[in-house]
Amino acid sequence: MVTPSIRVAPSAANRALNLLRTVQYTHPPSCPCHSNPNHHHHHRSPTLADHVRRHMATPVDPSRQKEYAFEMAASSIRFGPGATKEVGMDFANMKAKRVCVVTDSTVVKLDAMKQAAEGLSSEGIEFTVFDKVRIEPKDYSIKEAIEFAKPYNPDAFLAVGGGSVIDTAKLMNLYTVFPEADFLDFVNAPLGKGLPVNRPLKPLVAVPTTAGTGSETTGTAIFDLVSKKAKTGIAHRNLKPTLGICDPLNTRTMPSAVKAASGLDVLCHSLESWTAIPYNERTPRPTNPINRPAYQGANPISDIFSLQSLRSTVQYLPRAVRDPDDMEAQSQMLLAATLAGVGFGNAGVHLCHGMSYPISSQNPGYQHAGYEVDQPIIPHGVSVAVTAPAVFRFTAASNPDRHLAAAEAFGVDISNVKRESAGEVLGEALADFLAKLGDQPRGLKDLGFKPSDVESLVEGTLPQKRVLMLAPNLNEELEAEKGELRKLLEESMSY
Amino acid sequence: MVTPSIRVAPSAANRALNLLRTVQYTHPPSCPCHSNPNHHHHHRSPTLADHVRRHMATPVDPSRQKEYAFEMAASSIRFGPGATKEVGMDFANMKAKRVCVVTDSTVVKLDAMKQAAEGLSSEGIEFTVFDKVRIEPKDYSIKEAIEFAKPYNPDAFLAVGGGSVIDTAKLMNLYTVFPEADFLDFVNAPLGKGLPVNRPLKPLVAVPTTAGTGSETTGTAIFDLVSKKAKTGIAHRNLKPTLGICDPLNTRTMPSAVKAASGLDVLCHSLESWTAIPYNERTPRPTNPINRPAYQGANPISDIFSLQSLRSTVQYLPRAVRDPDDMEAQSQMLLAATLAGVGFGNAGVHLCHGMSYPISSQNPGYQHAGYEVDQPIIPHGVSVAVTAPAVFRFTAASNPDRHLAAAEAFGVDISNVKRESAGEVLGEALADFLAKLGDQPRGLKDLGFKPSDVESLVEGTLPQKRVLMLAPNLNEELEAEKGELRKLLEESMSY
Repeated sequence: MVTPSIRVAPSAANRALNLLRTVQYTHPPSCPCHSNPNHHHHHRSPTLADHVRRHMATPVDPSRQKEYAFEMAASSIRFGPGATKEVGMDFANMKAKRVCVVTDSTVVKLDAMKQAAEGLSSEGIEFTVFDKVRIEPKDYSIKEAIEFAKPYNPDAFLAVGGGSVIDTAKLMNLYTVFPEADFLDFVNAPLGKGLPVNRPLKPLVAVPTTAGTGSETTGTAIFDLVSKKAKTGIAHRNLKPTLGICDPLNTRTMPSAVKAASGLDVLCHSLESWTAIPYNERTPRPTNPINRPAYQGANPISDIFSLQSLRSTVQYLPRAVRDPDDMEAQSQMLLAATLAGVGFGNAGVHLCHGMSYPISSQNPGYQHAGYEVDQPIIPHGVSVAVTAPAVFRFTAASNPDRHLAAAEAFGVDISNVKRESAGEVLGEALADFLAKLGDQPRGLKDLGFKPSDVESLVEGTLPQKRVLMLAPNLNEELEAEKGELRKLLEESMSY
Repeated sequence: MVTPSIRVAPSAANRALNLLRTVQYTHPPSCPCHSNPNHHHHHRSPTLADHVRRHMATPVDPSRQKEYAFEMAASSIRFGPGATKEVGMDFANMKAKRVCVVTDSTVVKLDAMKQAAEGLSSEGIEFTVFDKVRIEPKDYSIKEAIEFAKPYNPDAFLAVGGGSVIDTAKLMNLYTVFPEADFLDFVNAPLGKGLPVNRPLKPLVAVPTTAGTGSETTGTAIFDLVSKKAKTGIAHRNLKPTLGICDPLNTRTMPSAVKAASGLDVLCHSLESWTAIPYNERTPRPTNPINRPAYQGANPISDIFSLQSLRSTVQYLPRAVRDPDDMEAQSQMLLAATLAGVGFGNAGVHLCHGMSYPISSQNPGYQHAGYEVDQPIIPHGVSVAVTAPAVFRFTAASNPDRHLAAAEAFGVDISNVKRESAGEVLGEALADFLAKLGDQPRGLKDLGFKPSDVESLVEGTLPQKRVLMLAPNLNEELEAEKGELRKLLEESMSY
């Protein structure tokens, strides 16, 4: 039995194979490497390997060379009901003495926060609480958080909350360790300078209270850069939390609408990372491994995570949304969110996420049911999923097998589906899944967008280079790319 | 579509569910938590969670309490043909100035070592090479290595070689950071004190040259404790390498017999971790998370790695052994070895590994074909696999579904197999796989063991508590346990 992840993966092995084939093709067939199948450790076989390396070292413009390696960065995860309280011992074990606890005004009142505080207190660890994280953070809310952390000068951070909280804590950590840096130094290019994070940060333990962003496993922090009217972020594997504590008792407090929206984020993390361009099609090849992006394209390890989290989400999200007491489904969704985080954290996301940022920030006034906030809101997961049917219809041509495997994860019998119908079938499965989940907009129109808004959404998507570069099938030429984005948004108006 | 890993996993979710069910069962049905399906973030629902926590905090003897959480420790892996050379930049990025390079007398002459040295030199990093690692290390060979490292006082380590090299480098790192420690302080109990590694170690980059041990991803180091005539080790997640660089160009040099034996180690890592007792059946529950063992039992994340590596090994090992130029198979085996390392590194191994240690060290004089060494040797992978058919026949009763899923990975059509035949079917699939792989002993008899040796092998297995405690279906009472081990070894004499 072969899993789709291996069956359809454009794998590192194939890349190696192709490289070697290239070399073997031009290589004298009399080379002893090939004629002696029993060559052993003492047999020095430099010729073939040297040829490969020479081939790889050919002095070409590195910006046009494709990637040849991928990196799976560490994510330590602890999972267990009640594990939140262990955090005090974790900090004691790290010899942390002053902890900056980061949360928001809602979570600060919840049991998750109470357990964390009790854990710290029982170990006698001094801590201070910053509870002013803004949901969907903006640069100014992040800067305010950083200004809080700097004078406290903690030796570790603890984030208790959803993605906004964990992301904000990552940046408090970053700019406390780089106090002299300009805020834009590390912000993703082209909006910021995109400098690599070349110092180790302080320990950060993240305790998620939603099953969505997977931020506890990733090196990414997302926020609005108000001056540029753009959603952007900072991404580097050194931003990754030291440990994510996934405690299913903490996600029980999510309202059903939050469960649904967060779960749709998980769904798109899985699908986008599974279908992102393969890592060895990405350019440029970095000249130093520190410049290898976290979002490096699909690879054989991220595939395992992405496909598993997709299957779990399809299976458990509807149950988790329907029944708040279905602890098995809630726990499995927390696990799926974390697995998807490891997957997309090492592979990336693409079109759904790229378009979601202008969709959320150009909100014409939509107020998602079940979200008790005092301003219009298109939850992140909703803004991501609304374009998904159109996106995967479009990307399927790049890799029909993967899109069929995804459709299969939705329960579609693909045994008689033609490869050229992969996009149609997956798009339909997605639209069907969203409809059955309930309370979801049936397209951008339901969010209040008009056809005349499409152009502005296209313009808002274009700066999302970091994710668009991973979009399969997207034209690299600007006008053609705009045309394709326009078409995707138009097709997402209603379905 | 549901994967076996989720379908048959005794998952964290089930554990949480059971916990909550226990509580809900004794909980007044009028609790507002249950009656309000739209409870939102502001709804403080302490009662249920508090009950769960109280339930978990019941003052019982912690040594009898079962585990409730699992931890997936970080393993950073870079994979790509030619990636070895990047190691110089990695150390430069870490600001390392003096690197202790660890290897053995064979690998020091290979291209892997040349590439690593060139990488270091081109970044101007000072390094010294210790090339005296003993294959199948003994305590005295490790101590010699430590004495080499201490005066050099490196700020980072680089291991280039197989499992013996990487394991030795881990211990050079450990005892350089704990110069005052007694060697037995960290050695697994009961032979050593089994103290936790409570300081961060220096960076260690591991470049495997075999596709077997997965040591580049684990916190385990194995060696012979000569005075006790026992194979034991040191295991703590802080021993884990900072980064594993898996370069498929480096495993090309393995002779075919080494490929086969290393691959059988991967096979057993996968099968043993997949079938180990579930983490939440392990006792005792640690009172501090630092005491949660790396070998914690099967869990929903290790399952993903274990099953995937099993499938890959079944698919690619025969090809890799048959054809040294099949780069796809060689690369996939390197990837499988690393994935299996993440799996068993977080779940553990059990009976095959437990019995392999006395089998290797009590070798009656067997010299495995294709190993050019000047003393008798039963390669680790061979000593592990030789008991596998008997072991999985025995363990199947503990979890027939998992054993059937494993048989399915070997290509067996399990649709009409009864659950009570799971062990028979898997045992047969394994024996068949070993026979077809070629050049493998058909039991302990082929290694030169006689029925009269069984008792001594049993006695040599008993101290392997750390792995035996994860063996499903094994009796805890000493005499009964001995009887079961005796039977397994007798059944492994020939097949």
